[in-house]
Amino acid sequence: MITAVADVGGTDTKLGVVEDAELLSSTTVPTPVGDVTALRRLVADFVASARTDHRIGATAMVVPGIVDPATGVAVHSENLHWSEVPFGRWLAADTGLPAALGHDVTAAGYAEHRHGAARGHAHAAVVVVGTGIAASLIEDGRVINRAGVGEIGHSVVQEGGPSCVRGGRGCLEAIASAAAIGRTYTARTGRVASAAEISTRIDTDPDAAAVWDRAVQALAAGIGQLQSLLPSELVVIGGGLSLAGEVLFAPLRDAVERRLTMQRIPRIVGARFGATAGMIGAAELARDAAKGR
Amino acid sequence: MITAVADVGGTDTKLGVVEDAELLSSTTVPTPVGDVTALRRLVADFVASARTDHRIGATAMVVPGIVDPATGVAVHSENLHWSEVPFGRWLAADTGLPAALGHDVTAAGYAEHRHGAARGHAHAAVVVVGTGIAASLIEDGRVINRAGVGEIGHSVVQEGGPSCVRGGRGCLEAIASAAAIGRTYTARTGRVASAAEISTRIDTDPDAAAVWDRAVQALAAGIGQLQSLLPSELVVIGGGLSLAGEVLFAPLRDAVERRLTMQRIPRIVGARFGATAGMIGAAELARDAAKGR
Repeated sequence: MITAVADVGGTDTKLGVVEDAELLSSTTVPTPVGDVTALRRLVADFVASARTDHRIGATAMVVPGIVDPATGVAVHSENLHWSEVPFGRWLAADTGLPAALGHDVTAAGYAEHRHGAARGHAHAAVVVVGTGIAASLIEDGRVINRAGVGEIGHSVVQEGGPSCVRGGRGCLEAIASAAAIGRTYTARTGRVASAAEISTRIDTDPDAAAVWDRAVQALAAGIGQLQSLLPSELVVIGGGLSLAGEVLFAPLRDAVERRLTMQRIPRIVGARFGATAGMIGAAELARDAAKGR
Repeated sequence: MITAVADVGGTDTKLGVVEDAELLSSTTVPTPVGDVTALRRLVADFVASARTDHRIGATAMVVPGIVDPATGVAVHSENLHWSEVPFGRWLAADTGLPAALGHDVTAAGYAEHRHGAARGHAHAAVVVVGTGIAASLIEDGRVINRAGVGEIGHSVVQEGGPSCVRGGRGCLEAIASAAAIGRTYTARTGRVASAAEISTRIDTDPDAAAVWDRAVQALAAGIGQLQSLLPSELVVIGGGLSLAGEVLFAPLRDAVERRLTMQRIPRIVGARFGATAGMIGAAELARDAAKGR
């Protein structure tokens, strides 16, 4: 089945035509932040135009924030300034197609579980580390797809630690997200650098090494919470930070092993899908909607 | 269906005959700690004797530690000094009945979900706070029943905090279990008191109040982790500490509300079943085994 999907980000929205797990075409446009009507129209217009070239069988939209997939409502997004938006219903009404609304990180979980690094695993976690941090949890062979699951970025790993955008203290995201790594490095050195740049300097720049290690330890603490509550045989790391590869994974494996006592020690690997994970996963949600799942 | 069940604890083993969720009779005997053959015989003899009075349709045994319900193997118990013991297979072989092996806290989850405080809830957690701390997790209307799930007691809530029996630092159990509360109070005051005694003194004894508050904050941190990863509409508190009632629940609700930012705030209530939860839950596992689930 061919699907037309949208992966809405805080800055850009990716629009794609997907056949099974293959991206036939895609385009990236700025997200109309705060204007839900414009976003609704943008996605509906894209689906209509995709139908002139393809026989589209279903459609889906994935968004950040709190999403209720059962009702198709985007409950809340801080960055996109919306609450209680029925995108799922709008998408179905505007297109007449089977339609789904999902969480962007849950979608990445579907992509990795059905077609990527977590394929064949009954119990796994897909942790997406980018501007924020969230996880998709696979339990008993299925991605858990409900509101608020996997918000590991807002779980506390350091009591009284740095403040988070949501008002918490010491949340994982406030220490280990790509944004937090850059921010911490700048606060420490007075120099501006991205997390990607910092990851290339850890052998030569002690400040970079210290900031990176702190993020790694915090991620290990988050994975420790996951393994204590809902242990996995496999933890897949995705998102922008995962592009650092073994510079991230090798110390992370060490830190997780050192930290866990009686819990299962998971294999830790990089994601298969990068920036396309949301679209590939959205296509799975669309196909599930078409099948009435 | 009538079942004969055993709830094996670190000190005592409870043997019961259960019809549906009702305990027809029960007896408590010392656990033969470290002697798995004696424990095997004890349970088999009990089932045989129960069959002289009742038409027993199935049997189950629940134990602490790490348990693999799928294979019926008690993988590890620190307190009972065993590893890789096939109690499930032994029980089936010794009795000829449909037989199950389960985790004692998971069993409490079955009891509360099917017959107690969590009845009718699709997503809930049953947190048992006694000598140790562990949780049973209910996801999408089912108790998650697999090895290592819900080991919240060994999740870190205070980096570098007090040492845990498993070698970790700052585990929830090392701060908030009944044993830890008593230990902390004694270390602070030089006086011996149980957690139950301490709970009655918090209005008059500032040391008791401080130790209690620390445990409450740690429990709130553990519930915060749960709500971040696998949010519930309801958290049921069981185990010995829950007998403190509102002295525990009221400040715990406050602490959880203060701590959570974007996560769902769960209702927090006491368990219905006390010391019988393990037997009532074991009866559910036995009945499921008889139904081939």
